[in-house]
Amino acid sequence: MAVPNKMLAARLTAHGGPGALELVDAPVPSPAAGEVLVRVDAAALNNTDLWTREGAYGLPGDPHARSGWRGPIDFPRIQGADVAGVVVRLGSGVDSRMHGIRVLVDPANYDQDGDDANPVGLLGSERNGGYARYVTVHADRAHNVEGSPLSNTELACLPTAYGTALGMLERGRVQAGETVAVTGASGGVGLALVQLAAARGATVIAVSSAGKLSAVRHAGAHEVIDRATDPWQQIGSTAADGVDAVLDVVAGTGITTGLPSLREGGRWVVAGALGGYQIDLDIRRLYLHNIVLLGSSMHTPAHFRTLVDIAKRGYVRPVVAATYELADIHRAQADLAARKHVGKLVLVND
Amino acid sequence: MAVPNKMLAARLTAHGGPGALELVDAPVPSPAAGEVLVRVDAAALNNTDLWTREGAYGLPGDPHARSGWRGPIDFPRIQGADVAGVVVRLGSGVDSRMHGIRVLVDPANYDQDGDDANPVGLLGSERNGGYARYVTVHADRAHNVEGSPLSNTELACLPTAYGTALGMLERGRVQAGETVAVTGASGGVGLALVQLAAARGATVIAVSSAGKLSAVRHAGAHEVIDRATDPWQQIGSTAADGVDAVLDVVAGTGITTGLPSLREGGRWVVAGALGGYQIDLDIRRLYLHNIVLLGSSMHTPAHFRTLVDIAKRGYVRPVVAATYELADIHRAQADLAARKHVGKLVLVND
Repeated sequence: MAVPNKMLAARLTAHGGPGALELVDAPVPSPAAGEVLVRVDAAALNNTDLWTREGAYGLPGDPHARSGWRGPIDFPRIQGADVAGVVVRLGSGVDSRMHGIRVLVDPANYDQDGDDANPVGLLGSERNGGYARYVTVHADRAHNVEGSPLSNTELACLPTAYGTALGMLERGRVQAGETVAVTGASGGVGLALVQLAAARGATVIAVSSAGKLSAVRHAGAHEVIDRATDPWQQIGSTAADGVDAVLDVVAGTGITTGLPSLREGGRWVVAGALGGYQIDLDIRRLYLHNIVLLGSSMHTPAHFRTLVDIAKRGYVRPVVAATYELADIHRAQADLAARKHVGKLVLVND
Repeated sequence: MAVPNKMLAARLTAHGGPGALELVDAPVPSPAAGEVLVRVDAAALNNTDLWTREGAYGLPGDPHARSGWRGPIDFPRIQGADVAGVVVRLGSGVDSRMHGIRVLVDPANYDQDGDDANPVGLLGSERNGGYARYVTVHADRAHNVEGSPLSNTELACLPTAYGTALGMLERGRVQAGETVAVTGASGGVGLALVQLAAARGATVIAVSSAGKLSAVRHAGAHEVIDRATDPWQQIGSTAADGVDAVLDVVAGTGITTGLPSLREGGRWVVAGALGGYQIDLDIRRLYLHNIVLLGSSMHTPAHFRTLVDIAKRGYVRPVVAATYELADIHRAQADLAARKHVGKLVLVND
């Protein structure tokens, strides 16, 4: 596999609008000791790409500060968290059997060793990512997926969206026989939540916009609710004793309105704030009912191994809404921001 | 044990100020099937008594509504959750060996059977309580504490304050070797948290008011911080990598200010809102760091059994600030509201 010296890459030069992301002819990076060079065959888009570009994460004590999710971004930065591809070069000290292997990349940097480490960095944010033809990653983040029945495009959908969804289900201890409500159910994480929750035997009530309800139902939701029609009141009447968990990527006023829809001891798991990050919370409604508000960011190493197992067995099939060439990254990000699709948007390299 | 027909009792006639609680000559209740009549030898006061009297719990969607913690109170209601005493009469179907036994009463009504049931009612709120000479309770809530080295006054301190503290530690999974911050550390629940957390091998940083710091340190806190001196900044410098858990009965602005003091994946456990219930929360600060905000109300049946074991072994000695006769209930509640004491206030019957 001949590797050129230069490649097309989309990199951020600063926080800002679409123009802050520029297509450049960049050098192909060299894998350092313990790293591998991965040829990017497919790279999925995520909302975090938009928020990182915009610097929409704020800082403690300064909610309007422009910042990446973990603090300042070291520009220029090639975006893109989700990479499926092939190992084409090895840094020193890497097992030579990795060469030529089809891999799915775990995009996380972790704060410690062990199965339950916390993610404190992300490909495309704290190091260069997959909006490019090649990317270097730590060898132990490149997981062998030889034999997976999923296409490269489908594989690339998994790391951030399905990793985040799996992290939410695991941290929220969602089990077979429970009833869960999923917000933002047509998005990348939302649809992954619907599929993964249903696959583990939970009853899924999904909230989405009117035009997307049939697609969400097709993905496995048992009940679908138009978000424009007082969804929490409807969830309250669908699950009279309250739902066991809410799996929420929207936040905003929904947390205040929806909290009484949880059963005694229920869990509200949040992994995003599409509907607004500033929450007005009557803490009595939480503590008097033993309710838990769980923040959930990405996955742990243990969750990612489960995801690789899902990829190998193909028991969940990601929903791909559209594919793009890397050169069309601006159109792809605009489509992502417009939210008219259901499922994942993926960059595909020939 | 002769039981009279009438007894002194302090009962609420409505929500309101001290005058809403009236001392009356009430009939001694009869135990129904499955219940026992307990002679109240000691009954501790709790903040929930004040909040129930005032109706300070609000309702979902109506934060200023006057309400008990679980909704409307069925007046008149004898207050008092924490009872230590002796079983003096048995309802039908109760094991005759319970007669004459020294007991500690679990004040909870639960929503289901099993070890992990949620409390959905409280003695003195959803049924008549221990601000009286006698009280009826379900027989299986009257736990045998024969042989406990604790006095009746000490025993009566345990159910609500130590039950709530134990519930917070268990739900927050506080373990030996962890560092925890305790707010409101001189109060009933706060001091119980300090004692129980230290007893399980955690390092305790306690926040309290200046005049009470030495008493809090004496109870087992490893570090004490004056709450008037920017405590979260101090906690941040004491535990540079962040504390593992915050055990909080104050809430208010402290949640917003203190959240960055938690380590990645840390737990903030709330069981009260002495400092205000309306929380202004940037949900990104929660989810980007895998932080969990746990509401914790009272204890489970499993927690209460642990508490009874603590009572029998006497390995934690509750701190009694002052004792009162039932006839002095108004002075006792006024002292509780003034918060000049450290530890528990207890009504003691001769």
